[in-house]
Amino acid sequence: MLAGVCATDLQLTRGYHGGYRGVLGHEFVAEVVDAPGAPTWLGKRVAGEINIGCGDCDLCHRGLEKHCRKRSAVGINGHDGAFAEYLVLPVANLHPLPDTISNEEAVFIEPLAAAFQILEQVKITPQMRVFVQGDGRLGILCAQVIAQTGCDLTVIGHSPDKLALLRAAGVKQTALSTPELLVQLARSPADVVVEVTGAVAGLPTALALVRPAGTVVLKSTFADQLNEFDISQLVVDELTLVGSRCGPFPRAIGALANRSVAVGPLIHARFPLRSGVDALALAGQKGVLKVLIDPLA
Amino acid sequence: MLAGVCATDLQLTRGYHGGYRGVLGHEFVAEVVDAPGAPTWLGKRVAGEINIGCGDCDLCHRGLEKHCRKRSAVGINGHDGAFAEYLVLPVANLHPLPDTISNEEAVFIEPLAAAFQILEQVKITPQMRVFVQGDGRLGILCAQVIAQTGCDLTVIGHSPDKLALLRAAGVKQTALSTPELLVQLARSPADVVVEVTGAVAGLPTALALVRPAGTVVLKSTFADQLNEFDISQLVVDELTLVGSRCGPFPRAIGALANRSVAVGPLIHARFPLRSGVDALALAGQKGVLKVLIDPLA
Repeated sequence: MLAGVCATDLQLTRGYHGGYRGVLGHEFVAEVVDAPGAPTWLGKRVAGEINIGCGDCDLCHRGLEKHCRKRSAVGINGHDGAFAEYLVLPVANLHPLPDTISNEEAVFIEPLAAAFQILEQVKITPQMRVFVQGDGRLGILCAQVIAQTGCDLTVIGHSPDKLALLRAAGVKQTALSTPELLVQLARSPADVVVEVTGAVAGLPTALALVRPAGTVVLKSTFADQLNEFDISQLVVDELTLVGSRCGPFPRAIGALANRSVAVGPLIHARFPLRSGVDALALAGQKGVLKVLIDPLA
Repeated sequence: MLAGVCATDLQLTRGYHGGYRGVLGHEFVAEVVDAPGAPTWLGKRVAGEINIGCGDCDLCHRGLEKHCRKRSAVGINGHDGAFAEYLVLPVANLHPLPDTISNEEAVFIEPLAAAFQILEQVKITPQMRVFVQGDGRLGILCAQVIAQTGCDLTVIGHSPDKLALLRAAGVKQTALSTPELLVQLARSPADVVVEVTGAVAGLPTALALVRPAGTVVLKSTFADQLNEFDISQLVVDELTLVGSRCGPFPRAIGALANRSVAVGPLIHARFPLRSGVDALALAGQKGVLKVLIDPLA
């Protein structure tokens, strides 16, 4: 078992989602050590989808289990998470992993699936100009996924190191976020802006960088609310806002298996479970990428 | 020439759009009395698109003239409108009208086109459940347009009279907006909610009535801003917000010509131009539908 710390974990410790109480952790790889009634899973190395629907409502019946009103979510809501030696999960949530994906890489399957969800929701073609706004953990994954479409992609970030990491991973156009740069980019606005800064103020900036009749994809959740939201701009400019959350595990597993996305350089540190509090503190520091927690160390 | 008073006219008198100064009026039918260089238009009865792009920028070149940054808009921004004896407009904005459409009906072409814009932006199928929230002038047109898709449509309004008018026009399911009704509807939420109440508070209600992974279409512009907008709900429920403004005139002209939309019952009163101030005052009163202004009376 190995788990990763996500921005959502940090938000949860600050009161997001009405105060979850339980074991955190929803990015993980694990070995099946018990599977009553499903012995073929025993010993398999798996990634796990985090939403657990009731299986019996209108939303579950139409394949929207992840939106079930009675759902629990591993490490987020009503279901203990992966910062632990053991974790319980329905067999339906499991995905077996090929040997070509290491444990360290497999921890990224959940957030990488969330990045692929963008392509499930918005059609991005090679003719399109796209900005990814945010160079944090999820932003780096979103950028790599979107780069695969062949579109004209620019990543706007705050960290020279992270932007260099992206260029090394094949994302050619990156830019340090400054007021001057934003003014310049707004002059040739994007067809699609992916807002993944993790800050509420990211939305107004994204709206300034998208062309009329364009689309802003929202990937971050916050404990905060946005004050003074100008609905009329959405109407006058005919903008589309798309909220985007969890995504398809098979696409993420495929991308790791065929090496089209590089996640190794994102790993910043690895802590044993007993130092979990230190791990979260470090993950919350500026410039820190993925922090791993190893319950078996 | 005959013109109609729109909610946007009333918003403009309240300071929306940074204080437009000029002749109001953007819903109209007129006769071409002068057309330098385009004599075939002389004497034609026309409706007119209201956005005038520069014709020379990136947006105009890609067919987004209505979003041109330098655009003017008849009676709204930088171009005198139709509450006048004469109006100047580029030939490219004109649509000739068949004799089967009366002047009174033709005044509805601009707002009816705006209603059809919803179908240009969002795919609505017979299998879908749709709420139109708002039974004002534009709401009644949106409801009739959406009813044509054969979807399961419910119109939520505040006026028994207007809802009765909609039922007479073939929209079977209407409901008076009460807290109890909203709670009940939220239990079987819609795939698509069209928010056309004209009030900022309409958006939070629409978000409560749409299912996860559903779409809210925004048709109203406001002078006000929305305070405390919860972006996280969009992300967690993977909702899509679509701003929607002006639409395709040919579809509106076609719908009036083939009588698939009824606009006659929406006409509330008709004023001569010299009583224009009274006309706007009446149009702003609760329950009043379309008020016409006749510059030739």
